[in-house]
Amino acid sequence: MANYDTIVALATATGSGAIAVIRLSGPEAIPLVNRVFKGKNLAEQASHTVHFGTLRDGAEVLDEVLVSLFIAPHSYTKENVVEISTHNSRYIIERIIQLLIRQGARAARPGEFTLRAFLNGQMDLSQAEAVADLIASTSAASHQVAMQQMRGGFSNVLKQLREQLIQFASLIELELDFSEEDVEFANRAQLKALILEINNVIQKLIASFEQGNVLKNGVPVVIAGRPNVGKSTLLNTLLNEERAIVSDIAGTTRDTIEDEVNIQGVTFRFIDTAGIRDTLDVIEAKGVERTREKMKKARLIVYLADPQHDDLEEIKNQLAEVEQLDVPYVTVVNKVDLLTQEHVDTLYTIDPLFISAKNNVGVEELKAELLHKVNLHDLGTDDVLVTNIRHVEALRKTEDALQRVLYGIDGAVTSDFLAMDIRQALHHLGEITGSVSTDDLLDNIFSKFCIGK
Amino acid sequence: MANYDTIVALATATGSGAIAVIRLSGPEAIPLVNRVFKGKNLAEQASHTVHFGTLRDGAEVLDEVLVSLFIAPHSYTKENVVEISTHNSRYIIERIIQLLIRQGARAARPGEFTLRAFLNGQMDLSQAEAVADLIASTSAASHQVAMQQMRGGFSNVLKQLREQLIQFASLIELELDFSEEDVEFANRAQLKALILEINNVIQKLIASFEQGNVLKNGVPVVIAGRPNVGKSTLLNTLLNEERAIVSDIAGTTRDTIEDEVNIQGVTFRFIDTAGIRDTLDVIEAKGVERTREKMKKARLIVYLADPQHDDLEEIKNQLAEVEQLDVPYVTVVNKVDLLTQEHVDTLYTIDPLFISAKNNVGVEELKAELLHKVNLHDLGTDDVLVTNIRHVEALRKTEDALQRVLYGIDGAVTSDFLAMDIRQALHHLGEITGSVSTDDLLDNIFSKFCIGK
Repeated sequence: MANYDTIVALATATGSGAIAVIRLSGPEAIPLVNRVFKGKNLAEQASHTVHFGTLRDGAEVLDEVLVSLFIAPHSYTKENVVEISTHNSRYIIERIIQLLIRQGARAARPGEFTLRAFLNGQMDLSQAEAVADLIASTSAASHQVAMQQMRGGFSNVLKQLREQLIQFASLIELELDFSEEDVEFANRAQLKALILEINNVIQKLIASFEQGNVLKNGVPVVIAGRPNVGKSTLLNTLLNEERAIVSDIAGTTRDTIEDEVNIQGVTFRFIDTAGIRDTLDVIEAKGVERTREKMKKARLIVYLADPQHDDLEEIKNQLAEVEQLDVPYVTVVNKVDLLTQEHVDTLYTIDPLFISAKNNVGVEELKAELLHKVNLHDLGTDDVLVTNIRHVEALRKTEDALQRVLYGIDGAVTSDFLAMDIRQALHHLGEITGSVSTDDLLDNIFSKFCIGK
Repeated sequence: MANYDTIVALATATGSGAIAVIRLSGPEAIPLVNRVFKGKNLAEQASHTVHFGTLRDGAEVLDEVLVSLFIAPHSYTKENVVEISTHNSRYIIERIIQLLIRQGARAARPGEFTLRAFLNGQMDLSQAEAVADLIASTSAASHQVAMQQMRGGFSNVLKQLREQLIQFASLIELELDFSEEDVEFANRAQLKALILEINNVIQKLIASFEQGNVLKNGVPVVIAGRPNVGKSTLLNTLLNEERAIVSDIAGTTRDTIEDEVNIQGVTFRFIDTAGIRDTLDVIEAKGVERTREKMKKARLIVYLADPQHDDLEEIKNQLAEVEQLDVPYVTVVNKVDLLTQEHVDTLYTIDPLFISAKNNVGVEELKAELLHKVNLHDLGTDDVLVTNIRHVEALRKTEDALQRVLYGIDGAVTSDFLAMDIRQALHHLGEITGSVSTDDLLDNIFSKFCIGK
């Protein structure tokens, strides 16, 4: 464990709530709190115990608190950690943090607790990144991939790949020492087979990013259609159901999420553009190129038609325009309750889903179709998905380096070039888990964390 | 301890933060969590210990958590309490609370943990109310009075008064049993002396409300003066200094407080009315009666003049109008740096403070004067102040009842009337600490708490 100073930060959110937790980590965490704590002598207490007492600034009682002790290495950071549970008053929190800073603590930077956990070997870099993803997770799917990654699923896969490569790298580097003797310690056929196998895994990981990204960030969807076909009503129907579920548990959902619908654990993000609610215009009118661009970038379009306003030919024309965007789409006929059977029959030629957004008819079928169109593979709890663009980039660089190794073997290049390319591949794999890291990289990752994590 | 069910709620604020704490209280708190916790067997652990493990919904890992155990009666509610420290993800929090509810917990109502603490005798009602005040406290002064009250200072004073009264009430009621014999167990002269003494304390408590209210809720101040005399500049100068101090501790102050200035621990609230920034108009123009009303209701007026725009006679006229409002005011001449010495000399007749809001000249003196005008008594840490209007009302009713007792003694009424009035006084004193309470009263008090407290 490196010799760090002692850091302090509020670890809970600010705002309305009953309690707040102030967290310290570092060699001085316990004696520092002990100096301002009146209760048991914290220096004599066991790890993982909680103590009631008061925090005092001189004679003044700042608060009655519960202090939890975690003695190194049995803590989140592997350092001594103290968590102080206080009344959730902005004033009290400020006073306590100021007091602790006067006692020698330093205000923690964003993510610094998790940075220390990484630097002290508690977790690798991809696991640390998963902590932030976990906190940000808002759906079953994003939660599952973050949890998998935090608990080391992704790290284990990479670790195996690296270990196999390191073995070969060592053998090849051994050849360098005997370069004048022209020996081959590393069997080239075996190396080639191994690299093909590793590349296969890496390609699968890279390919998983599409699904991983969807699960982490949600599926961007545009509901298109002429004005007054019921786009807003449909969106509200989808949203309201969801909200009703969410608000079941009083007190947990004080934040409102706009335009996100969770379908069987997958988040569908309905992209809010000024034009979206009238995106049928888009396809005909001029000057709405921007909205059209949004549609092109969507992962999915729900094309909503109202056959009372537009006849079949018109709808077909509109669909032809949607088709050109080359984005998967679902054709939906709204206000089905107002249609005659005859009318419905003619519409079957465009094979739509019939719904009534207002009366919540056919909406479940639409949801099922949205899920189907996104074409997610069923996820086992052990499946590893890549969700981080940084990881994908490192994997692609690894793949490039391995490709050069393959060319090298086939072209019979010398050991030193092979060794260089294998080292390069190892370097990029190491960037993901942080076995190779720079201060800049760490800054970049942890500065996005919240303070107190 | 009554036989309650087990309640659960998020105890920390929602929003951006690293960790969240979910709290349970009740007889089933430990077995209930134990069923979904994978780690040590919680049923076998000591009170005040913390345990790392995972919470699982079937096979699915919801989160890696720290579970703290508080075994009855050594907890906030005097019941078994479990606190679960989770990653602060809205999704995870919801899932965990839903899981615990499926296991048999019930979503807690606002303030229900503190209500149980009260019902189980952990604290009296005025202490419970102080918990909410403490959380709401935003200044040294409001913090101090809430802390004093939470720690039982006020309760102790009341307890002593009650005990003395109860003794006499018993003696007088004893007389009722012997009413035909015309005995006096309770010495009337002693009773009178006691009641005068108690009334004296009660009057002091009632009188302390003015100061207590100011300390708890802040001093309402209006900065008045003609347009462009520098009212906004002065307010910003006052505010900015304060903000600079507050933002020293990164991460603690994400909420912005508008128009509140803290001077030596006392909050001055600059009341925001459309007219305030131009309140000099008020005094002359028609149709600004409403703003004038605000000034009348202020505890303090800062009257700001700019002698470059108005001559001495004009300023005197304006001050005469302010005088009529019968609110303490401070006369301040702004832009002193632009005045000649001669000009300054003529202004001494109105005895103003000279400042330059823009250049921060004389602002400290103004602050000292504001504090002086509020005329707060120096507070010792043991001084008891009444800050709650409910308590003042109960004290006034107690005072009325005691007054009737005094009349009764002087008028030599029979023991039964005396006893009734003393019981009445005891009843009202008991309302404050909750030794007398109704469901309505409790509902009214605790429904204003946040959930999780």
